[in-house]
Amino acid sequence: MGRVTERRRVIRIRDGAVSTRPDTLVAEEPLEIRVGGTSLAITMRTPGDDFALAAGFLVSEGVLASAGELANIVYCAGATGGGTAGPDEAESGGGSNSYNVVDVRLADGVPVPDISLERHVYTTSSCGLCGKASLDAVRTTARWALDTSPDAPVRIAPETLSALPDRLRAAQRVFERTGGLHAAALFTADGELLDIREDVGRHNAVDKIVGRALQQGRLPLSSAVLMVSGRASFELAQKAVMAGIPVLAAVSAPSSLAVDLAVETGLTLVGFLRGASMNVYAGEHRIALDAAATTG
Amino acid sequence: MGRVTERRRVIRIRDGAVSTRPDTLVAEEPLEIRVGGTSLAITMRTPGDDFALAAGFLVSEGVLASAGELANIVYCAGATGGGTAGPDEAESGGGSNSYNVVDVRLADGVPVPDISLERHVYTTSSCGLCGKASLDAVRTTARWALDTSPDAPVRIAPETLSALPDRLRAAQRVFERTGGLHAAALFTADGELLDIREDVGRHNAVDKIVGRALQQGRLPLSSAVLMVSGRASFELAQKAVMAGIPVLAAVSAPSSLAVDLAVETGLTLVGFLRGASMNVYAGEHRIALDAAATTG
Repeated sequence: MGRVTERRRVIRIRDGAVSTRPDTLVAEEPLEIRVGGTSLAITMRTPGDDFALAAGFLVSEGVLASAGELANIVYCAGATGGGTAGPDEAESGGGSNSYNVVDVRLADGVPVPDISLERHVYTTSSCGLCGKASLDAVRTTARWALDTSPDAPVRIAPETLSALPDRLRAAQRVFERTGGLHAAALFTADGELLDIREDVGRHNAVDKIVGRALQQGRLPLSSAVLMVSGRASFELAQKAVMAGIPVLAAVSAPSSLAVDLAVETGLTLVGFLRGASMNVYAGEHRIALDAAATTG
Repeated sequence: MGRVTERRRVIRIRDGAVSTRPDTLVAEEPLEIRVGGTSLAITMRTPGDDFALAAGFLVSEGVLASAGELANIVYCAGATGGGTAGPDEAESGGGSNSYNVVDVRLADGVPVPDISLERHVYTTSSCGLCGKASLDAVRTTARWALDTSPDAPVRIAPETLSALPDRLRAAQRVFERTGGLHAAALFTADGELLDIREDVGRHNAVDKIVGRALQQGRLPLSSAVLMVSGRASFELAQKAVMAGIPVLAAVSAPSSLAVDLAVETGLTLVGFLRGASMNVYAGEHRIALDAAATTG
């Protein structure tokens, strides 16, 4: 797409010295996500992987769970232009298409979400009843449950987790230039990098990861580790659960509600993952602690 | 409110040694914002200053611009309890009130926002036409314009800006304990701290600042500097403009659309504010560069 970064003039001040030069900024533009022609959401995102972003968003919302439920995704004509692009995000001939509106067409028989109903359900279930009800709402919409048996098939060594932040950063190309992007990466339980996405919005980076997995028929991601560059909010934990991801690791702190959701759903939640140090907030049965000395 | 932080059990791994202990996490809960009884938005926020958050959100949305337009704000009864609280956020006698739903009552004659219309307008104006149209949408809803004359009344010395990050951090009490909070602070042009708020959501921290200013009759904040602990997104720049704040300073990078909005509206936008270094992306006429040596 060529719009991941943009150039702008900047006045630099360094210890009183002033200079003017071009600077590289992360691109941020609105993306409107439509389903069957009806607007469902608008998100501020870094352009690129827009179809994956839309697909992943719909996984998080419980609308999609497999590639077969997705017919195709197209760019809509903007107000000033026309043209569509196929699921491979090929450029259209529309010329003035803004590439900021996508329409997701569901496969025959897949229920189109009722926006007003969705809003109503979300409102009453998650907020009238406070945090606990939010967790219920997530659990009922997820298409699959995480394997929470004590001998879960996914077990990760702390040493493997410790290596992930460096691998994430090494794979972050854009960040080096702009300092303005959140990153999300998918790893195997052995620490092998499967995918990485960056975005001005942390939720978008995760949606892009999940959406690509859906497009490739890889949901649920039942043996993967999701690593995020910042904090672990409730919404990120929710996205992991909806994609069937059993382990979420974050460089920074989780919120209380993210921990609550992890405990309720059996998600393994790791925070403050820095070098050989980390905090495990939930789902420790997937961390291979056997060899480590336990104290306290 | 007593819910800014919460305690959870955590398993700590430090160089192979494992211990279990309580940990302090930042609280995150949903807040539903209603206007005249109708749900307008849900945000994941850190509890506290909920009435200010709701008021500030409505300033950002163009619904409110002065304290006189606001009748009062109450906590709604949750599904499991009752009771309301006055604008001073006094505790109610409801007992089981979740304190996660607020209802904003507008003064007589203030138009109640039409949610479906708002959504439609936002959809067509900001997304069918891409970024440029978003800026138009903001400009038309702002109640006041920033003073963009070359001899703007607000002028800030780079040395004053350089001192703000340390003052922000010094005022961040919760951050020290949880590592999970965004902060926003309001300063005078002389660098005096006027207000500081923290939240799991950066937008919420700014809304709380703006909402408190509205409640105190201080809008537009035409001589203030808004400082944020992270990045400067389009939405944060938009919130500054809607509150009449002429200067936005961020510790990290701005996005391309934040810079575009700043240029269009005359907002002074400073990024990468670290020690004696900073980048000025727009509105440099408010930075007192006279004494500094200009090169390049």
